[in-house]
Amino acid sequence: MNHPKTPTAILLLHCPDKQGIIAMVTDFINKNLGNIIYLDQHVDRTEGVFFMRVEWEIDKFLIPKNKIEEYFRTLYANQYDMSFRLYFNDYKPRMAIFVSKMSHCLYDLLARYTAGEWEVEIPLIISNHPDMEVVAKRFGIEYHCFQINKDNKEEQETKEIALLQEKHIDFIVLARYMQVITGNFINHYPNRIINIHHSFLPAFVGAKPYHAAFERGVKLIGATGHYVTTELDAGPIIEQDITRISHKDTVDNLIKKGRDLEKIVLSRSVEKHIQRKILAYKNKTIIFN
Amino acid sequence: MNHPKTPTAILLLHCPDKQGIIAMVTDFINKNLGNIIYLDQHVDRTEGVFFMRVEWEIDKFLIPKNKIEEYFRTLYANQYDMSFRLYFNDYKPRMAIFVSKMSHCLYDLLARYTAGEWEVEIPLIISNHPDMEVVAKRFGIEYHCFQINKDNKEEQETKEIALLQEKHIDFIVLARYMQVITGNFINHYPNRIINIHHSFLPAFVGAKPYHAAFERGVKLIGATGHYVTTELDAGPIIEQDITRISHKDTVDNLIKKGRDLEKIVLSRSVEKHIQRKILAYKNKTIIFN
Amino acid sequence: MNHPKTPTAILLLHCPDKQGIIAMVTDFINKNLGNIIYLDQHVDRTEGVFFMRVEWEIDKFLIPKNKIEEYFRTLYANQYDMSFRLYFNDYKPRMAIFVSKMSHCLYDLLARYTAGEWEVEIPLIISNHPDMEVVAKRFGIEYHCFQINKDNKEEQETKEIALLQEKHIDFIVLARYMQVITGNFINHYPNRIINIHHSFLPAFVGAKPYHAAFERGVKLIGATGHYVTTELDAGPIIEQDITRISHKDTVDNLIKKGRDLEKIVLSRSVEKHIQRKILAYKNKTIIFN
Amino acid sequence: MNHPKTPTAILLLHCPDKQGIIAMVTDFINKNLGNIIYLDQHVDRTEGVFFMRVEWEIDKFLIPKNKIEEYFRTLYANQYDMSFRLYFNDYKPRMAIFVSKMSHCLYDLLARYTAGEWEVEIPLIISNHPDMEVVAKRFGIEYHCFQINKDNKEEQETKEIALLQEKHIDFIVLARYMQVITGNFINHYPNRIINIHHSFLPAFVGAKPYHAAFERGVKLIGATGHYVTTELDAGPIIEQDITRISHKDTVDNLIKKGRDLEKIVLSRSVEKHIQRKILAYKNKTIIFN
Repeated sequence: MNHPKTPTAILLLHCPDKQGIIAMVTDFINKNLGNIIYLDQHVDRTEGVFFMRVEWEIDKFLIPKNKIEEYFRTLYANQYDMSFRLYFNDYKPRMAIFVSKMSHCLYDLLARYTAGEWEVEIPLIISNHPDMEVVAKRFGIEYHCFQINKDNKEEQETKEIALLQEKHIDFIVLARYMQVITGNFINHYPNRIINIHHSFLPAFVGAKPYHAAFERGVKLIGATGHYVTTELDAGPIIEQDITRISHKDTVDNLIKKGRDLEKIVLSRSVEKHIQRKILAYKNKTIIFN
Repeated sequence: MNHPKTPTAILLLHCPDKQGIIAMVTDFINKNLGNIIYLDQHVDRTEGVFFMRVEWEIDKFLIPKNKIEEYFRTLYANQYDMSFRLYFNDYKPRMAIFVSKMSHCLYDLLARYTAGEWEVEIPLIISNHPDMEVVAKRFGIEYHCFQINKDNKEEQETKEIALLQEKHIDFIVLARYMQVITGNFINHYPNRIINIHHSFLPAFVGAKPYHAAFERGVKLIGATGHYVTTELDAGPIIEQDITRISHKDTVDNLIKKGRDLEKIVLSRSVEKHIQRKILAYKNKTIIFN
Repeated sequence: MNHPKTPTAILLLHCPDKQGIIAMVTDFINKNLGNIIYLDQHVDRTEGVFFMRVEWEIDKFLIPKNKIEEYFRTLYANQYDMSFRLYFNDYKPRMAIFVSKMSHCLYDLLARYTAGEWEVEIPLIISNHPDMEVVAKRFGIEYHCFQINKDNKEEQETKEIALLQEKHIDFIVLARYMQVITGNFINHYPNRIINIHHSFLPAFVGAKPYHAAFERGVKLIGATGHYVTTELDAGPIIEQDITRISHKDTVDNLIKKGRDLEKIVLSRSVEKHIQRKILAYKNKTIIFN
Repeated sequence: MNHPKTPTAILLLHCPDKQGIIAMVTDFINKNLGNIIYLDQHVDRTEGVFFMRVEWEIDKFLIPKNKIEEYFRTLYANQYDMSFRLYFNDYKPRMAIFVSKMSHCLYDLLARYTAGEWEVEIPLIISNHPDMEVVAKRFGIEYHCFQINKDNKEEQETKEIALLQEKHIDFIVLARYMQVITGNFINHYPNRIINIHHSFLPAFVGAKPYHAAFERGVKLIGATGHYVTTELDAGPIIEQDITRISHKDTVDNLIKKGRDLEKIVLSRSVEKHIQRKILAYKNKTIIFN
């Protein structure tokens, strides 16, 4: 993981399903002397859409790095009506963390970051409360507090967006951030805001899912990592997991057991995003592995 | 498991929580020369209710088997305002299976029954379709077909209830029985009808949960074993489990993967019931282990 | 699943890793008017081996079905030093079940077969005991009993092989068959005998794994589906799963809980084999999904 | 969890199985005006041993807190040949962490500690390397480095033991501490040293279990929390869990996926210990819930 890496390009695409797309893409890479090290594809037959992720080594690629996007678009993407994104493995995406008062997800993200588990930069943490500043300081990361109430939300979000843009933030992780974000904010980061919801969605949408789970008497509790869309808790799901509970568990116990789930499920979701393994389409995700 | 068993009594009780109940119950058993082989208890502090399951060997018990219930009620249960049920391990409960057209749960139940996994009798199978009669015949079990439509449901259910009573049925298992049962029927078997619902309730209540799961793009599908109450898919949950799915899974795949879940979760639920390990209270279950 | 299916070819291959193999294979299919409906590949960088599974519709394929193997070998496989196998989705593989005295895996396999879950034929069941004949009869499947002792093993296996060949058996499933099979027998069916071992291998190799698990005080028990090789319980692993246990579980309980695991893990293994999704290489498997 | 708590006593005991023990213990508590809030028991019929955990409120208990142990021993324990330990919920056990160079388990433990998840004190961290001092500093915890080689192990351990005693350490957590501890050290802390082993024991005992798992081609990797005994990786198991892997996972991936398992399984093990829910007997554990 820490070896000097061969430079690669990662192409994520989707388009109307048609015969010959794989052959075309692999031929494009191959004849320009790219070495494919990963390829996976998926056809959604209900929607008639083809999805693909391909990664190839570009050290001997005939097309210069900064021209690949243009060439691929001109020569192939346009005629197949493709939507595609091109990434390079030598760029570390820049991530902002939003947090309120709970520390478990924040610590888990920062511990991984500090240990070098992820190819990511975390330039700042944003919060609506001062509580977690102490954690940010421990890890030497900037902490910005934007206190939010009914009257100032729009104004504060405008400042947040300005700050995020100034810091060239690529995506945002809501690490148990207890504020609903406005549609305006979300539209600045489509499928680039990851939230952790503390239930196995679509069960227990909204506030206090552990209380609702206790009331219903379920035997499992869950957590869901998903992209934020303008409809609450209804965005494309990235990852879910559950843990077993019993009648002995009080609401406090559910909250406690849930913390472990939340942090693991959130971190798995973030990792997939960092690794460019997620393709969101309509309200679902394709997760390449 | 098949050794000659020492006769035991199993007492399931709940009552308002009070100091000294465990001491009282264990003293009652002990001083009458019963040997406790299992005891578990639970206090629901929100409800202020005490729950207990205790099993003891009665071969040397001073109180005759057919007098235990009366003595316990007179001497203790009344003053503590207890609800309790008393079972003996030498009685095999009698179970009816209701089925429609799918065989996977039915085979799983009958395979266990035939192999002697459970201390239960299955005198009959009831269905609203003739399709599964061939399976019933393979296992030599009576099959009764009550075809049901909008107009005859009440009448058919009356006949079913008469048959169930004639056969001394203690509890009913709905093994993917695709009919809503009326409140009148349910009230004849309170907390004695076990259903398998093919989702992790409360997500995807009602018909076609796999289609709904596919639409929502969840990463897990589930199954729920629960007691049937008059509110659809809302009865006390006995057991739940999930399996992981991906974007590659079509609705047909979900149905396929779901079958394994359904049969295992249903069988675990039925086993807990047979073993007298479930105490339903309001809309939840205490599952002793 | 039961719709009239478009005929497809399935190609499983491995060869020394080299640039351009995917492009070559997809080009071969594409230019001969095959429509790729599935493609997955894997490179084992430690071994330097490339693995691939590709499935394409052959209704308009320019090369006749019975010539595909020859053409592919001549034009491509030889120069890339490929090992490959070609299957067609309109052929149902023929499977024999070997069983001893336990019924749970057998019932699970036969219930799926009867319900049409799998594209497979099961012409016969072989056993070293007469006990399961009653089950075979229920499902109308031939049952052959070859009683085996130290002295007659070789002779009986010779008869079994003759019978399997006469019935054109493609692969064998050991559904808790409690006999070690000789190397001679195994060599007739390399990577075509699937066994279920009742532990999470490599823990608890050999006889009585549940007793060993109880002794060791583990908190999980497992089951492993694997191909049989001449080294006991050491063949390529296809599928594993576990279930949680506790100090309350006796050896009898482990055996009971294990049965559910065994049958599910075995069936998942068999299904992958039937679907041509397994590529065994040395002592491991590539499981395409 | 952070409410002012009613003081309780927790009694863990085991003794030869006999009729009447539960009745005796509950009567002792009840007649002295203790209110039982938890009781669980277990009989190991193979060993003929009775195990019990009972917790009761002592605010109105007739026997003074510092006399309970003596009274219980004199009046009951001696005659029943009991081994027992008595704890009080107002004492926070003191825990030392041993660590080498990996940070994931350490961060997980310290994040929980800092967030107040556990009723524990962590006065110090001991290591054989200086690498993790930076983490200790972030959390304001003493860090002591005892570099160990073949020649100085005994001497260094002597110093460690002195330090642990000086700090009144009750139990030790090896958070991926990559040193074998001598029998002498272990005997100072019998069943009070918790280790995390990065495999589902007894598979892959010893060094490099992920490499061994990769070689064997398993489909699951695991982690095991256990008490350290003088036999390597063979002590009583507290907790195990697994995660699914595939042929796509390199050894580096296994190490990465394993980290999440290790930290969660270790933390669950530590939590059970802190909550006095573990009774180790011979080479197994009873885990009360």
